[in-house]
Amino acid sequence: MPKIVNHEERKALIAKSTWNVIAKDGLEGASVRSIAKEANLSLGAVRHYFNTQEELLEFAMRLVEEQVTERMMEHTKHPLPPKQLVLNMLMEFIPIGKRKIEMQVWLEYISYKLRKKELQEESVHVGIVTMMNKLNEDGLLKKDINLEEETVHLHALIDGLALHILMGLVELDEKRIRSLIERELERIFT
Amino acid sequence: MPKIVNHEERKALIAKSTWNVIAKDGLEGASVRSIAKEANLSLGAVRHYFNTQEELLEFAMRLVEEQVTERMMEHTKHPLPPKQLVLNMLMEFIPIGKRKIEMQVWLEYISYKLRKKELQEESVHVGIVTMMNKLNEDGLLKKDINLEEETVHLHALIDGLALHILMGLVELDEKRIRSLIERELERIFT
Repeated sequence: MPKIVNHEERKALIAKSTWNVIAKDGLEGASVRSIAKEANLSLGAVRHYFNTQEELLEFAMRLVEEQVTERMMEHTKHPLPPKQLVLNMLMEFIPIGKRKIEMQVWLEYISYKLRKKELQEESVHVGIVTMMNKLNEDGLLKKDINLEEETVHLHALIDGLALHILMGLVELDEKRIRSLIERELERIFT
Repeated sequence: MPKIVNHEERKALIAKSTWNVIAKDGLEGASVRSIAKEANLSLGAVRHYFNTQEELLEFAMRLVEEQVTERMMEHTKHPLPPKQLVLNMLMEFIPIGKRKIEMQVWLEYISYKLRKKELQEESVHVGIVTMMNKLNEDGLLKKDINLEEETVHLHALIDGLALHILMGLVELDEKRIRSLIERELERIFT
């Protein structure tokens, strides 16, 4: 009788192994082979999910999106004043601890997609636009701001800060980064 | 008699060819071979400047730095009010036209250096810090700002905007980008 494989469980195992390998050896060290070894699976079993370095990068990127989305949703469960909640959600983009690897995967992914001329709409950007529109509809933002420009400004600031922290240009002082973002929120919140 | 090679001229030829190849085929298409072909030189002649893909990336990155620095210095030759001059200089970081390729090289370079855990101080960042300090010494910035925080903020905003334009998340409307940056300058200039 053939072994019955629970695909969701297996996918979760491979996802976790992919993450462990990237954390240990970087994206360069991540291969179908190294991930199969980490997951204690055959090459064939892993190849079901990705076959090439490129597919591995796509898989790792989807993992990043899932993890970030999950953490963002976690925040919405805690009752907090809107500005505080938004600040906590935006801080999820700052590369602290294991988020460093997430951002590294994201940068590799962007470079790769730029080379391929294949960049599409980004789920994080859609998320920030949606959040800003919702805040505005709920009357939480000042009436005289240009919503579209402020959205561009806020997202650029967040990603620029995240990038510079990752590059080591800006010291990762969580309190300092929070207050830089908070100042921007104060400018646009009623 | 051996042929006498003018190394400066040859380096300029190889630089130009490297740029042409990257512009045409992307970084992926750039190799010692393709650049030698473009420059109409032997493989050996090009290998004098770079041998591996990694050295090619280092060479391309130095080219980016040289080109950006040159354009920035060009601006300082035109007599303009300081705020206008700073705005023109900062706009050099926005990926318009051929600057798109420069930023793509920069992103590849960052990803590569992050993988190698070799990132060092960036000349552009040093330039922005120096510029802000100079503006402050000249009494052009408001007295009550936190200089260090405003420098972090401005550079993050610029690089975030540049990144989002490159990714196609923000429409490249030069006037709009100028006015977003100008608003920030107005906030800190006297």
